[in-house]
Amino acid sequence: MNIDSSALAALASRYSQGPKYMVAPAPSRAQWQQAADLALRAPDHGGLRPFRFVLVSEDQRASLAELFVNAARRWGQSEAEELQRAHDRAWNGPGLAALIVRLREGEPEVPAHEQLICAGAGLMNFLNALHLMGYAAKTLSGAALRDPALQAAFCQPGEQLLAWVLAGTPSKPAAARQAAADAPAVLSDWVPPNLAR
Amino acid sequence: MNIDSSALAALASRYSQGPKYMVAPAPSRAQWQQAADLALRAPDHGGLRPFRFVLVSEDQRASLAELFVNAARRWGQSEAEELQRAHDRAWNGPGLAALIVRLREGEPEVPAHEQLICAGAGLMNFLNALHLMGYAAKTLSGAALRDPALQAAFCQPGEQLLAWVLAGTPSKPAAARQAAADAPAVLSDWVPPNLAR
Repeated sequence: MNIDSSALAALASRYSQGPKYMVAPAPSRAQWQQAADLALRAPDHGGLRPFRFVLVSEDQRASLAELFVNAARRWGQSEAEELQRAHDRAWNGPGLAALIVRLREGEPEVPAHEQLICAGAGLMNFLNALHLMGYAAKTLSGAALRDPALQAAFCQPGEQLLAWVLAGTPSKPAAARQAAADAPAVLSDWVPPNLAR
Repeated sequence: MNIDSSALAALASRYSQGPKYMVAPAPSRAQWQQAADLALRAPDHGGLRPFRFVLVSEDQRASLAELFVNAARRWGQSEAEELQRAHDRAWNGPGLAALIVRLREGEPEVPAHEQLICAGAGLMNFLNALHLMGYAAKTLSGAALRDPALQAAFCQPGEQLLAWVLAGTPSKPAAARQAAADAPAVLSDWVPPNLAR
């Protein structure tokens, strides 16, 4: 059997990298497209395609900043420093994409949790592609995402803005993070129950 | 920038393949472990590791078959043919792993949907690894998974058995599936709203 060890090793060296260690250039439009196309290799029960990505360009950051500041105000922030931080976050990452999910109801064969599993799988391949192109990337979320005006600015009815993907050229190699001490073994052997005969 | 085109092309050629087109050998224990380790490269907000895999060995298929038959009975099936089908499903796939998810509550920073996104990302890399090792694989789920005795036979308290991953040596190349005609574009450019000034 032909084992692609170099591809396996390349994927195994992917780690999240914060925007502090990203510089220009960002992925090109064609590279973002290639990453999104690879996301479509996710297992997708029923072919629902429950996710998509929306690119925010450099010249749209000011519009995003305004949404962030308005969201911060709605969350009760009013100090100039807090609002400035919310504003500046819109420029995080040389490249920026939004992960949008649409969970369809009334799909008895494909419950909502499977649609989220599909979106997560798509996100993994999106990140894998960026990594294999040489970019650092990080997925970010947080309570501010739930702001209704921000959601409305990215979503069609029935969709949710779930996370940001920041990407850029790494200014230092990304490093592994320590797993939680109580993390379960990721692989184990089944121990069948004693079945009543 | 150094772009790993061959790894990108290898990932882009991954498609699900049904057990009908899988033959022995199955992945070895070491290969399943390598796939599970690659799953840990998923973005994991908070480091919760909300997923794990459980291997079902060849000599445990009869125990699994008994659980499948009992589940079929609880679902109201009683004809010999139906029960035989439920029984035989336990031998589907030369190799078999269960995907188990644990959704922790009370993690304000990491809502349940993000934990599912992480599990989906882990699943994607699990499948990617099997593919890069030359194996065909398929993720299967369905209502029968929800059987309480089956769940109890695989899960610790708070966990859920979410899907099966079948893997084996492909007896024919896997093929692309047609996307749904109404599938949205997987990548688009943001159109900022007209913000009130």
